[in-house]
Amino acid sequence: MGSLILGVSGEVSVSGIAERWKDLSGSKNWEGLLDPLDSDLRRYLIHYGSMVAAVYDSFINEPISKNVGLCRYARKNLLRESGHDNGNPFKYEVTKYFYSPSTVPTAMDYLIQPLRADAVLKQSNWMGYVAVATDDGKAALGRRDILVAWRGTVRPAEWVKNFEFLFVKAPLIFGQDSDPLVHKGFYDMYTAVNPDPVLKAVSARDQIREEVSRLVEQYKGEEISITLAGHSLGSSLATLTAVDLATNPINKNTPPITAFLFASPKVGEHNFKTAVSNLTDNLKILRLTDANDIVPTLPPFGVQENTTLPILSYEHVGLEFDFDASKSDYLDGFKASWHALVTYLHGVDGFQGSGGGFKLHGDFDVALLNKYNDQLKGNYSLIAPAEWYVVKNTGMVQQDDGSWILDDHEVDDI
Amino acid sequence: MGSLILGVSGEVSVSGIAERWKDLSGSKNWEGLLDPLDSDLRRYLIHYGSMVAAVYDSFINEPISKNVGLCRYARKNLLRESGHDNGNPFKYEVTKYFYSPSTVPTAMDYLIQPLRADAVLKQSNWMGYVAVATDDGKAALGRRDILVAWRGTVRPAEWVKNFEFLFVKAPLIFGQDSDPLVHKGFYDMYTAVNPDPVLKAVSARDQIREEVSRLVEQYKGEEISITLAGHSLGSSLATLTAVDLATNPINKNTPPITAFLFASPKVGEHNFKTAVSNLTDNLKILRLTDANDIVPTLPPFGVQENTTLPILSYEHVGLEFDFDASKSDYLDGFKASWHALVTYLHGVDGFQGSGGGFKLHGDFDVALLNKYNDQLKGNYSLIAPAEWYVVKNTGMVQQDDGSWILDDHEVDDI
Repeated sequence: MGSLILGVSGEVSVSGIAERWKDLSGSKNWEGLLDPLDSDLRRYLIHYGSMVAAVYDSFINEPISKNVGLCRYARKNLLRESGHDNGNPFKYEVTKYFYSPSTVPTAMDYLIQPLRADAVLKQSNWMGYVAVATDDGKAALGRRDILVAWRGTVRPAEWVKNFEFLFVKAPLIFGQDSDPLVHKGFYDMYTAVNPDPVLKAVSARDQIREEVSRLVEQYKGEEISITLAGHSLGSSLATLTAVDLATNPINKNTPPITAFLFASPKVGEHNFKTAVSNLTDNLKILRLTDANDIVPTLPPFGVQENTTLPILSYEHVGLEFDFDASKSDYLDGFKASWHALVTYLHGVDGFQGSGGGFKLHGDFDVALLNKYNDQLKGNYSLIAPAEWYVVKNTGMVQQDDGSWILDDHEVDDI
Repeated sequence: MGSLILGVSGEVSVSGIAERWKDLSGSKNWEGLLDPLDSDLRRYLIHYGSMVAAVYDSFINEPISKNVGLCRYARKNLLRESGHDNGNPFKYEVTKYFYSPSTVPTAMDYLIQPLRADAVLKQSNWMGYVAVATDDGKAALGRRDILVAWRGTVRPAEWVKNFEFLFVKAPLIFGQDSDPLVHKGFYDMYTAVNPDPVLKAVSARDQIREEVSRLVEQYKGEEISITLAGHSLGSSLATLTAVDLATNPINKNTPPITAFLFASPKVGEHNFKTAVSNLTDNLKILRLTDANDIVPTLPPFGVQENTTLPILSYEHVGLEFDFDASKSDYLDGFKASWHALVTYLHGVDGFQGSGGGFKLHGDFDVALLNKYNDQLKGNYSLIAPAEWYVVKNTGMVQQDDGSWILDDHEVDDI
């Protein structure tokens, strides 16, 4: 993904990221690093966005599969099989997959539902993973990073069209009768118990918090960070996860928490924003927004569930980092998907300051712009076929007798 | 593909095909074998159709590729990589690839044209292969079979829409001033010199005849057959190849020639039909036709090139074997592609006699009905995803540094 710099010792060093990670994770609230964009931070942001891409890349969304809604790969193979290991010095071990119910009313339209009666998951979708930096990854990242990566919906159009505007209280985060209100659908997906028996009646929240706690305990003698990363819907869920971890610490000493939110919608109203602002000692949020993406403008306002008034505005949290991928010569404006994660990472790679133009820095491969899309323009369209990221034979595998069966899932612990 | 029968000796035997191959190849003009369909012949037909499928399965039709128009695989890997080796006792060694010009005026609309200036083939398309039975294949087939397989167009809709009706004389087959007239487009594709320098100014005709001659010479002490197989446009070209080989023998002793034509259009007029009829001592043609496929009705009539009159009818050659895949419960009548090769092979597998219904015999895997199509119906659609046959990542391959490049072709002799 990135270019390596060979240090004087002959060892591969990753520019200044290992030494500067606290700054890059927002210890000084990214002051002076964004405009123009610091070259280490550029690479750092593209790294965390790519870790979210691994979830999209590995999600089984074939509705006729009995494995629809699961991850295609076992945890130990996820990053390699989805193309996030080659050339990447930021090594992680994926230790936990987490799931959200696909049957909460607000999620029915855009989460994947199975067609087969014998589907493994009937009412849940795999949404992301918890990972921890390996020793090599720690050397490149400067500390033992615990990463929580949330994907967004694979059906963004349906999701945006049916956007839920209702607010609810968030008792599991802020207590029973506290003031902050958050988006009902996001809160449900984060906290509702997964009804599929194989998931043992836990919520995404419990799966994540238990695993993060276990890892913090396991590495308690080391310098640790907790990093949340998400895209689209997954940014909203990463926001709730981060705010929850900061508000309700699960270990005696909570490591510093940073959230990198790509293309995030708004999550709560004014009191939520205030509550998040009060956490800034230990919680840093950087929200990346493309100028042409509509999703960060949503939802504009809403009312609390089971009430009709007052109408409240949704408000963003964290520090916003704006850019404009439409300045890129690589993208066909008529076909570009400004909301797509790859377009975001391209936008970051080419960002030349708020007043500047667009120039690639080589931290993000332009071939990936056509990975799920058909948006490369003109002669650049010769770089890669449209929508090229497909699994061989859509998961059909030939047997020794010559017949073909759908075999699209590596068995692993759920 | 087929079911094997374990003989008393414990060796795998392939029903009666090895013993009965002359009958199955039409030595008695398939009398008594078609209605009801002899079970060995069923398997035999599906075998030869599948050998044609291997060409479609391996053709690079990605226009941004510099390899567009070539075969994806080296000859030695073709049958294995395209899924025609597992469980298949009829083993062949592919010895030669052949090509037709994509720039003959009649072919411009439906053959594949490259987008890149550095394309390997600018004016030709890979159309098929010559293969010879291995020793194992010979044991299963009863003789050393030399196979010539022709694919049809990957754009059948464009092809049918722009169907050429002109007749021309066929001097390379019948001599300068002989009577038979054949379809101009077919004759051009068979005989026109390939203009790409890498193809050394030879035509498909010369490539095929030279290779068949070489193989006949190589195996001259053995019992040999020559089998032509084609689908759609490829059936027409297989017809010309077969008639040419029978009319203009290339070896002292020409082996018996059989052509299995799937979904063939008509190739010539009355004099052509008469000429072909006079070759029946050494040339047997079985033409497989689905009741709902429009292609075998084309072209209805035409005029000779550079003339205006008379209007002449196109006439079919060989023995017709009719069936009706629309009797199958597996196929969605609204989405089924009656012309597709897989649908033909399914139709053969389920044929229950001209007055009968439809019942699968297990010689053709129904999962293949969705290989390039979306035609499985109802609960059968759970067998396989729609259009599932895709190469991993559309040929994009990740490099050690993490970047992705299009790498979709195994180097081999052209």
